[in-house]
Parts: sequence; C-alpha cells; structure tokens
Amino acid sequence: MSDNLRDVIGRVLPAPENHLSPELLEKARKARRSFMAKALAMGAGAAAAGKAMAAPEGEDAILKLPEHTTGLGQPVAARGYGMPSKWESNLQRRESPGLTRVSQASVSFTPLQGLFGIITPSGLHFERHHQGWWDIDPSKHRLMIHGDDGLIKRPRVFTMDELMRLPSVSRIHFLECGANTAMEWANVAVPTVQYTHGMSSCSEWTGVLLSTLLDMCGIDRKRAKYVLAEGADGSSMTRTIPIELALDDVIVAWGQNGEMLRPENGYPLRLIVPGVQAVSSVKYLRRIEVGDKPWNTKDETIHYIDLLPNGLHRQYSGIQECKSVITTPSGGQTLLDRGYYNISGLAWSGRGTIKAVDVSVDGGRTWRPARLEKPILPKAFTRFNFDWVWDGKPAILQSRAIDSTGYVQPKINQLRAVRGTRSIYHNNAIQSWLVSENGEVSNVQVY
Amino acid sequence: MSDNLRDVIGRVLPAPENHLSPELLEKARKARRSFMAKALAMGAGAAAAGKAMAAPEGEDAILKLPEHTTGLGQPVAARGYGMPSKWESNLQRRESPGLTRVSQASVSFTPLQGLFGIITPSGLHFERHHQGWWDIDPSKHRLMIHGDDGLIKRPRVFTMDELMRLPSVSRIHFLECGANTAMEWANVAVPTVQYTHGMSSCSEWTGVLLSTLLDMCGIDRKRAKYVLAEGADGSSMTRTIPIELALDDVIVAWGQNGEMLRPENGYPLRLIVPGVQAVSSVKYLRRIEVGDKPWNTKDETIHYIDLLPNGLHRQYSGIQECKSVITTPSGGQTLLDRGYYNISGLAWSGRGTIKAVDVSVDGGRTWRPARLEKPILPKAFTRFNFDWVWDGKPAILQSRAIDSTGYVQPKINQLRAVRGTRSIYHNNAIQSWLVSENGEVSNVQVY
Repeated sequence: MSDNLRDVIGRVLPAPENHLSPELLEKARKARRSFMAKALAMGAGAAAAGKAMAAPEGEDAILKLPEHTTGLGQPVAARGYGMPSKWESNLQRRESPGLTRVSQASVSFTPLQGLFGIITPSGLHFERHHQGWWDIDPSKHRLMIHGDDGLIKRPRVFTMDELMRLPSVSRIHFLECGANTAMEWANVAVPTVQYTHGMSSCSEWTGVLLSTLLDMCGIDRKRAKYVLAEGADGSSMTRTIPIELALDDVIVAWGQNGEMLRPENGYPLRLIVPGVQAVSSVKYLRRIEVGDKPWNTKDETIHYIDLLPNGLHRQYSGIQECKSVITTPSGGQTLLDRGYYNISGLAWSGRGTIKAVDVSVDGGRTWRPARLEKPILPKAFTRFNFDWVWDGKPAILQSRAIDSTGYVQPKINQLRAVRGTRSIYHNNAIQSWLVSENGEVSNVQVY
Repeated sequence: MSDNLRDVIGRVLPAPENHLSPELLEKARKARRSFMAKALAMGAGAAAAGKAMAAPEGEDAILKLPEHTTGLGQPVAARGYGMPSKWESNLQRRESPGLTRVSQASVSFTPLQGLFGIITPSGLHFERHHQGWWDIDPSKHRLMIHGDDGLIKRPRVFTMDELMRLPSVSRIHFLECGANTAMEWANVAVPTVQYTHGMSSCSEWTGVLLSTLLDMCGIDRKRAKYVLAEGADGSSMTRTIPIELALDDVIVAWGQNGEMLRPENGYPLRLIVPGVQAVSSVKYLRRIEVGDKPWNTKDETIHYIDLLPNGLHRQYSGIQECKSVITTPSGGQTLLDRGYYNISGLAWSGRGTIKAVDVSVDGGRTWRPARLEKPILPKAFTRFNFDWVWDGKPAILQSRAIDSTGYVQPKINQLRAVRGTRSIYHNNAIQSWLVSENGEVSNVQVY
C-alpha cells in the first residue's frame, strides 16, 4: 500500500463519532479502575460461580462492560464438531429459482460474496447432482480398474483401506461446473455472484495419483489413449478422460480440506481432474477403464456440449479457461458511503497459474494491476485485492485475469463472436458490476 | 516413487481375492448387460418415482447393484451448510481426561490422526478457553487502538464494518498452543497423536495487517517498542507483542478457511501472530495499546513461563520452534498386515519455512528424506509423506524437521539437558511411535 493511499484511508474512513478524545480516554480509564476495584472486592467467587457481574451503575453506555466480558462462557464440548456463528446463518449454499429443482437434477451455489481467501469451506462447496446424493458405507465401497486387449495387465478391485495405504498427494485445486456463468450467455440473467459464479469452489484434495494406480495394474502406456471414469450413484456418470491428463495430475481422492470427502461431494471416493469442468471429477468413483478411443457416453455427447452459431456442437470441450470475478463489492450488495474500499475477487485457470489480474473501475477503459495473495498455485483459485476510493459517482467494476500461458480473459462479445448466444458451458467472460450513485451494486453487461 | 517401490507395492498390497480373473470379468459384463436391459424395460418411471429398483435375482453377491446405484438419492437442501458423513462421526475434537475440564479452563484437541493435507477443518480446530467461549454480536463489537505519550497520534475505535473495508491479506498459518506436547516433558503421558500434538491446527486467515491499522492511527514507529493485545472475554487475556512482529506479519483477522471465524476461535475478530504460541493470537480482540516496554500481565508472568532446572523461569518465550510429527501410523492405530504403508505427517516452524523432513523407522539410527507436499509456506503446516514397507518386525517411527534457518528438531534428551523435566511449554522434541509385532502402535520415548 502506498503512503498516499494510507493517507487517503486515514482521511476517508474515520467517522467522527469514533474518534477518541483525550477527555473520553481519561474518563474510560477512571471508570475501568473503579470497576476493577469493585470486581476485585467481590472476590473471585462470583466469577467462579458463573454469575455475570453487573456493570458499574451510572456510567455512560460506552463504558459498560458487556456480559461476555463479565460472565463465564461456554466450555468445550466433550466431543465436538464446530459450526459457524449464529450471526452468519444467512451465508448458505442456495438453489437458484431459475433452475431445475427436483431430486433427479439439483444444484446449489457457493456464496462467493461472503467468502475470503482461496479455500471454500466444505460445508459451502457447490453441489451438482444428477440423481441425488448418498452417504455410502466406505467399508463396502470398491474401485475396479480394468481394460480390454491387454491395456491393463493386472485388473483388480481396491477397497478403501487398500487405497488409503498408498502413496498420497495433497493439492489445492478449484472445481468449476462447466455450466458456471451459463445464465449470462444471452443476457444479464441473475443478480448476485452466488448465482453467476457460485458453481465454483476450491479445496485441498488428498488421494493417490491415478497414474500410480494404473501403473500398479500394469497399464500399457504406449497403447492406452483414454480412461473412462464411472460413478456409483444412480446417474452412472461416465466421462472420457485423455490419457495425457490421467497420467499427469489426476487424483483418486478421499480427502477434502483435511478431512474425508463430504457425502454431497462424492464420499468416500471421487476423481479430481484438475482444470477440467467438474463433471469429469466423477463422484462416488467405482470404476476406471482404460481404452484406446473415447466412449461417447450420454454425458459427453448429449449433455456438456456447446451449440455453436452454425448449428453444430462442440464435444469434449473440457478445459476451464482462465477466468476471474470480483466477489466484493458484487451484485446485491450496497456501499453505505463514499471512501476507501478493498475490492476483492478470485481468479483461476485450467491451464496453469494466474500471472496477473487487472481491475477496472470505469467499465474497461482503464486498468490497474491488483495485488495477488499467495500461494499462487496451478489450477487453483488465486485471491486478488485492489485499493479503490469511491467518489460516489456511478462506476463499473471489472476484473481481467491473465494466466501463465499468456491467455487473457475475454469480453463477452469476443466469446459470442465465436460461440454465439445459445451455449450453456464454458462462459469465462469478464464480469461487470455497476455501482449506482445510491451505492447499490448490480449485474450489467459491457460490450 | 521409484520403479522399484512401485514393484514392491504391486507385489505386497494385492489380496488374492480381489484379483479379477478374465472369467469373473466376463460374468460381470453379462450380468450388467442383463440388468441394464431389465432396467430399461422398466422405463424411467420407476427411477423418477424414487423407488429403488431391485437387483437382478440369482446373481452372485458381487454382481448385485447397491441401492445407491439403482435408487434416487437426496436433493440439495434449499438452504444448506453441509456436514461430514455419518460414517465419520468418530472424528471429533476431544477433551483430555488428564486435563482441567471446567468452564473456567477447558481445552479440546484436533484429531490429527485422521486428517490429511495442511488445512484443518474449522470444525476440528483445537480450542483453548480461559473463561469459556462466546458468540459475540459483530454489530456491537469494537476494536480500540491507542497509546500514551504520543505513541499513537490518532487513537480510534473501529467497527467490524470499518475493519472489513480495509486492505486485506489471506495467509495460511499454523496455530500451536505453547502447551502442545506438554505432557511428554517428564514421561510418556498420553496414547494418541490427538493428545500429544492436537493443540495445533492450520488455517487460511484473512484480515487487515496490524501494521496498516497502526499506521492509520499514526504510530510513532521510532519510539514504539511493544503492543498489548486484549481480548473481550472474561479472561481479559492480555499479551505483550514485540513491535518487530506487530509491524511485520501480524493480522487482525475476521476470516478463517474462507468464512468468518468460528465462535470458539474468536468470532468476530482475533489477532493472528504467526509463529508465536497461540495464546498471543488473542481471541475476541477488543484493544491494541502501543507502548515502550512489556506489560508483564498475568498471562505472561504467572502463566506461560518455563520452569528451568535451576529454579528460575523463562518469560516471553513465544516463538514455536521447528517441530514435526508422524500422524499416521500413530499411537492407538493398528497395522492390519505387512507390506506397503504411506507414512504421513506434519512439520512446521515459527521461524520460517520447512526445508526438509527426515524419517527413521529404526528409532533414529538411520534417516531418509520424506517427500514434502506443496505449498511450502512460512509459519504453516507442511505435509510430508514417506514410503515404507513393513516387514512385520518391531519398528520405531520418527520424523525430524529442519527449517529455513538450519535449525534441526531436537531429541527429548537434548531439550531436557537445557530445560529439565518440569517445563510445560515449548516441547518440540522428536516424537517416537513404536510399531509392535502385532501391528499395534504406541507412544514411546527414545533417548
């Protein structure tokens, strides 16, 4: 932060009523001494009995001590798993009113507008179910690895115990549904970043590299071209994955953010295909088959295809290209007054690391670089922050990410020129938020 | 992983009953085709009605499809915050039977033996309460910054809204109670890694650097020597922090692992003093005072001191020195059979990054380097993994970390030679786990 900006913050932020005058400070000191003397006179017994001591009478409200300062709080639970504060109960995964809401096909969105850093709490990781979720008994779950024509020489079935003994890796990667930001292809469809970008989350995944398993089973590395991953839930989700990825950084994962996978994210075993649309990170993973050509399953020929302007459709368009979004301030939020704001957001790329993020506050006419928080990891969220002093006039906030391949996140009209407006998947366009004079922030499109 | 080891895993791990013969595979294929034909004949209606389809009759048990494959699962909740699987309910924070268990002073331990990677789920972050925990209304919480004699030129009180507008950082750091591993000073005291090392956790913290706040308030950087941090709970926890740390990487934090702090970890505001014993990362932070000498508060003169063999005690011994521990296999676990195991553990240093971790399986006679998982971050957990083939004979597993300053984690007798056996705090000795012939793992001390 520059000295100049530090000065701006110092001038702009303080509300006069919160300045502490020397007189007020002296009064607070005296009251505190008086209170402490009374408290000591009461002895430790009152506190030990768990009874809140009354604040001293006749003092100003500002000098009264709250119950949590004078009383006895809660002890730890004998056995416990902690939950968020009751004051944060509004921060939830939510369904979209505009999308399918039946058990056969449901989706919930991560509340990116209220999150910090790069780790998504597992309880807020987005969900996409093709036939509902299950809490599968891990002692009965199996993973089969096989392949015809000698592509796998030693086919076998693994128990969870067997898998979890193997050499493991732990890596932070984003998952993004290919349909994230789908509603923005044709128009400004939804009001908040939870619904525009909330089908993306980022976790630390732990498991065994798929390459380790394939080698254990005797894969023919020269003739194998693809693997098929199949899930155990009712959708029998099956996805073809090129062997280059399968032998690179694909993980057969049991761990998410330090603990076992959550049921709605594939417990006890899921595939993680870093950088690829999340449908390929098959949940409830039960089978890996090695082959020499794509399988053309329903979920890669009928679904998860891109309808182009000429009436043809793209298939096997898996990689999630470089993308970013400002999460605060964002649609549905309100700036209460002028002055300094920390603009904060997320950037990611399915092809590598984030090299830079630029931010514009004038709808893309001028750009300045944002600060990138560490760590900056491949195929993971990168958090960026940007200093901004709002002058009370309308402003349009945008972020533009550049990845390690040199690829620059496109504008929506650049994407539409190639892919039209009837696509569902792979919308990685720059997102624009309009700040109105009254401080309200809303979703707009800038061409 | 070396080709040699891959071969070892291939030979040692497979249990014969799990090999798939060509005959079994062909049978499975036929059964699957038959089942799919029947399922299709039933039409989509049965599935849509949420009724589980029966598995085909007369097939072997191995060929029957489970309910989660044939039935309809749970949809997303309209509003939701997810929880771990019901099969993982045994993985909990726990109190130690050997320690204080009253509301005035309670502690719960992180179950390191069941965790992966470097992020501790917030629901499993260890707790240490000096007067119980509270769930404080953030709209009423304030942080005061002041200092006598012109050390702070513009004292002020911040609301949470004002703090959260400021330039923020997000950083992954461990917190370790100074008393972690305290029970091991004199003897082998507790059976599991949850109780030996579970007062340490690692999270991604988000907040404003304390240096930013101090500069906003006009700190006299030349004359300021220390800051005092004070909490709002009944313990009025107060800790002196040297100005070198306060102006370096200390964070006034509201975010933990992507969301707001948990109540039992200081919601809505706590200090994070990276690398220093966690008591200095004051919870429910309400006041920062700048001064020119230490305050000598009760929690730094009566508590959190180290009793030395000569009867004197060390004060202000804050930095958590380089340390590591094998979390699996660890005390209380059992190896079910011989063969390959991935030995996994954690290393950290309050002085910088982890440079290397060595592992011994023969009680410290020979050492080999472990693999370090990325990211390797300053004052954060680093996950290490190590390949081991157990031959069924007794073994003693140890890890030894080396940090970026060149410091090598000591043996317990090296620590005792200097600090005796009556200390409570700052035991960073090498931990030893004995694997007995029957596979049981237990806590031992090796000199």
